[in-house]
Amino acid sequence: MHQQCRQCCSKTCTASNVRKKLPILTWLPKYSVGALQGDIIAGLTVALTVIPQGLAYASVAQLPPQYGLYSAFMGCFVYCVLGTAKDITLGPTAIMSLMTATFATSPVTGDATLAVVLTLMCGIVQFVMAILHVGFLVDFISVPVMSSFVTSAAITIAFGQVPKWLGLKDIPRAFFPKVYWTCKKLPETNVWDLLLGLVSLVILFTLRRLQNVKWRQTDDLTLGQKISRKILWVVGTSRNAIVVVTASGVAAILISQDVDVFSQTTHVQPGLPSFSLPKFSLHSGNVTLSTHQLFQELGFGLAVVPLIGLIETIAIGKAFARKNNYEIDANQELLAIGAANIVGSFIGSYPVTGSFSRTAVNSESGVRTPAGGLFTGAVIILALAVLTPLFPYIPTAALAAVIIAAVINMVHFRMVIYLWKRKKVDLVPWTVTFVFSFVLGIEYGILLGVGISLFLLLYPWARPKVKIKHQEVAVIQLSNGLLFPGVQYVTERVNRQALADGIAKSAVVDFSHVTDVDSSALQGLKQLSEDFAKRDTMLVLSNVDPEVLDVLNKANFSHIKYCKTNEDAIQLIYGKLPPVHTCLVHSTK
Amino acid sequence: MHQQCRQCCSKTCTASNVRKKLPILTWLPKYSVGALQGDIIAGLTVALTVIPQGLAYASVAQLPPQYGLYSAFMGCFVYCVLGTAKDITLGPTAIMSLMTATFATSPVTGDATLAVVLTLMCGIVQFVMAILHVGFLVDFISVPVMSSFVTSAAITIAFGQVPKWLGLKDIPRAFFPKVYWTCKKLPETNVWDLLLGLVSLVILFTLRRLQNVKWRQTDDLTLGQKISRKILWVVGTSRNAIVVVTASGVAAILISQDVDVFSQTTHVQPGLPSFSLPKFSLHSGNVTLSTHQLFQELGFGLAVVPLIGLIETIAIGKAFARKNNYEIDANQELLAIGAANIVGSFIGSYPVTGSFSRTAVNSESGVRTPAGGLFTGAVIILALAVLTPLFPYIPTAALAAVIIAAVINMVHFRMVIYLWKRKKVDLVPWTVTFVFSFVLGIEYGILLGVGISLFLLLYPWARPKVKIKHQEVAVIQLSNGLLFPGVQYVTERVNRQALADGIAKSAVVDFSHVTDVDSSALQGLKQLSEDFAKRDTMLVLSNVDPEVLDVLNKANFSHIKYCKTNEDAIQLIYGKLPPVHTCLVHSTK
Repeated sequence: MHQQCRQCCSKTCTASNVRKKLPILTWLPKYSVGALQGDIIAGLTVALTVIPQGLAYASVAQLPPQYGLYSAFMGCFVYCVLGTAKDITLGPTAIMSLMTATFATSPVTGDATLAVVLTLMCGIVQFVMAILHVGFLVDFISVPVMSSFVTSAAITIAFGQVPKWLGLKDIPRAFFPKVYWTCKKLPETNVWDLLLGLVSLVILFTLRRLQNVKWRQTDDLTLGQKISRKILWVVGTSRNAIVVVTASGVAAILISQDVDVFSQTTHVQPGLPSFSLPKFSLHSGNVTLSTHQLFQELGFGLAVVPLIGLIETIAIGKAFARKNNYEIDANQELLAIGAANIVGSFIGSYPVTGSFSRTAVNSESGVRTPAGGLFTGAVIILALAVLTPLFPYIPTAALAAVIIAAVINMVHFRMVIYLWKRKKVDLVPWTVTFVFSFVLGIEYGILLGVGISLFLLLYPWARPKVKIKHQEVAVIQLSNGLLFPGVQYVTERVNRQALADGIAKSAVVDFSHVTDVDSSALQGLKQLSEDFAKRDTMLVLSNVDPEVLDVLNKANFSHIKYCKTNEDAIQLIYGKLPPVHTCLVHSTK
Repeated sequence: MHQQCRQCCSKTCTASNVRKKLPILTWLPKYSVGALQGDIIAGLTVALTVIPQGLAYASVAQLPPQYGLYSAFMGCFVYCVLGTAKDITLGPTAIMSLMTATFATSPVTGDATLAVVLTLMCGIVQFVMAILHVGFLVDFISVPVMSSFVTSAAITIAFGQVPKWLGLKDIPRAFFPKVYWTCKKLPETNVWDLLLGLVSLVILFTLRRLQNVKWRQTDDLTLGQKISRKILWVVGTSRNAIVVVTASGVAAILISQDVDVFSQTTHVQPGLPSFSLPKFSLHSGNVTLSTHQLFQELGFGLAVVPLIGLIETIAIGKAFARKNNYEIDANQELLAIGAANIVGSFIGSYPVTGSFSRTAVNSESGVRTPAGGLFTGAVIILALAVLTPLFPYIPTAALAAVIIAAVINMVHFRMVIYLWKRKKVDLVPWTVTFVFSFVLGIEYGILLGVGISLFLLLYPWARPKVKIKHQEVAVIQLSNGLLFPGVQYVTERVNRQALADGIAKSAVVDFSHVTDVDSSALQGLKQLSEDFAKRDTMLVLSNVDPEVLDVLNKANFSHIKYCKTNEDAIQLIYGKLPPVHTCLVHSTK
């Protein structure tokens, strides 16, 4: 026993297995000064993006701004050890922030207990999924459902920022009431907030153009040209930081002059988060949630959030692996984000996953290894240590602009046209996801979308196409396998055909497309066999796959015969061939 | 517009359609004295069975005994008008009683508000399902899941009666605590209850043998022999009534002698139920449930109970239709039980469906048309009007014996052996359903069972078998269709094969088993096409189904070519055949 354990241990703990689970062991020994240079530049650039984004996304998650930064650094460290893709950066994202707000909105404003427990549970679920190798479950979320989910999430998030942009107060959270009250309260708009938001948006969109500019490629660039292009790219990339810092500066100056015109961020706890086990109950003022109630609040978020997180990381990872010609191991990615969430929950992070925009920044900044994340993380910790006292100066309208500019690109209505032209039936899951995301909430939208697309996948099993060639006997061809959802239907159709013209006829069922039968099918065939015996007619199965025949033989139906082809079966029915001659198996007793 | 409406109306309201929806119009005009005789005898015999069963099942549903009778008569009347099978009798069943206790246990002992609302909602769901023709949803409950569900329900119900049999008080409802406390409280057993229950069980099992006795068939029976056989059959069939009446008589006599030894039924409201709209809120003592809370209590019972009800009726209906050579219309049955539940909720019924045991009694008693139900219903109403004052005399141990004897037959462990021999993988859903029925509760058991069997059905779509024949190019054959769950996996496999030996190779993908592609597949193929173009190799699809080819052509992949056979495809890759010659479609631009 002891020896077996040791053997098993030594089998799983081979060098190659450990290296697979700890990818850092592969790249660290080969680490070079060149790589370090690339990683430092990329790490700093990503930090410039993630700090303003984190502060902004925290408000989408209905949390105080520092939680955006708490969520931003631990993922970088963990991913450096466990990640397989050099480009991916983990951290807060718009969609995960929305998910946090959806499933873990605390009854106490600004309290993160629920969100942090969600992070821990999300991490554990992802980690266990990785160990069980069931990450393929995300494959059951189809492209139209995912696209529709992202579009409606982006609309929800963007519209969620409109009241903040306009400086409106006391707007409800649900989508339609929010639209209604935002319109109704339009006259209460804070013109300064509106103006600041508008200016921020214009700057953000302009600077994005700068980042994406395609310069003419020539070989004879002067050093000056090279540097100026690089500077323009850096300015474009750090547009969020520029907008937030400038807006905060303006606000600070105005406040120092006793002009307090902008709506501002509140509730900021200075300094670094403490490292401690998440709390599993909530006591604040007159609100108390026991551990049980807390988990009840999270509900099926415990299943949805880990999957959404996984799908985001995998989608991003695959896109960049294709672009930069490397392979990612989906299961290892799941392990990495699971670990990042588990560890993150100890420092008050809300659920994190791979961020598309920052992964792109990372890649374009020339990152060489996952070590880039170390520098990003270090800068974030520095910011938390030093900058928190300045956070209350950040105008909410500037953060709203950052979010709106970030998510507006995720709205992707072209998919509707694509589906209309290519595959109209896929518009059904798209529409279901979209409509119910707004009517019932984003979490029900995706669940119903997945449900309807699975239904469309399963329907042919329940109502398989049955081709009927009416020769002198009924010849019935099944276009699908025969498994439990279709058994009742097929047996009924066969019986009906055998009785179609008022007299009982023999029947041939062509099994050429049946690659598997289950116990429900065996019971159905037993019924059929008895029905045909009672009517004193013959039931012959033709073209039966050898594996299927094995199962049927074991079931030993007394009145079913098997033939190689439909023609043989018909001949057999007419008595022109002796059963022994043509039948694959002769089971009459 | 008005005319269109009228046309549409006249189309749906044809005589044949009306007759289909109201089957009574078909059989009533042909009704004869002979049929009346058969229906009266069968109706009375069924009433003799349903009255004691109803009183007993009400306790399974955690309701006072009269609710079993409230639930027993309306179904008979409604089914007489809407039902298609002469044999089926609707009313309270063991499983629906357990479902009522599971989903609609009132916080107030003896209050039926929740159960009645469940009846109404269950009826509405079934009615709507009938109108939408989505009754086929029950086909997704496979034989192993249903069998396991029935077995664990029977065990739950039977064990639930043990404390009543033994006269134990204050036993918790959940299964394992119930077992624990029953064992712990064994010393408190009321010996009189134990004895009465034991005697009742012995009588019930003996009389059932009498009912099922197979007499030697001879033609020269004397009238006396015929009559005595008939009497024995009637005694066997009315065994429940005999046991309950006798036990109540004994109890009444003992009570009149001031000997009060048996645990007895309590809370009986005399007389007929009043006809009124179900209440949608509950106020009783210090318990208050608003409409919203009430629906929250019912939870996913609103989805599960209608389906279980449908599956019971359909299974029974089909079994008897096969036995007695007629056809039932599954959708019309759904309509009938839906209507029965809707109307039943107005007289305080809990959810009803077809009862297997009473349908068998009905059939064997020689019922001729659904009119038999009228007589059953009339007798039940009479019993309610006259007998309710006597109900408190019924010893609970006798009712417990009736239930145990009724459900013990539903325990069906032979299925495990059947599955082991025939199809081992189907043991998985069986076991999941069984284990979780006890661990989490019967409702989660069936849900998880359905989940796992759907998963087993879907898994081959996510990980389709991919056969690889390595000739000089990679030839990849898909054994399944290409739809969203498998797209990522297939594209990865194809890419990996094309890069297998360290150099980029061209590939042929054999599409002969692909009968459908969706938009996710199109996106996957687009990626593949780009990947092969980037590597400057060729990707050829062979054996493409014409319908699939149509969809692919619309998507217009610039780097995918199509050939009729794998051989042609390989020739094309080696440049031995000009593309125009063999390709079905030539889409290079």
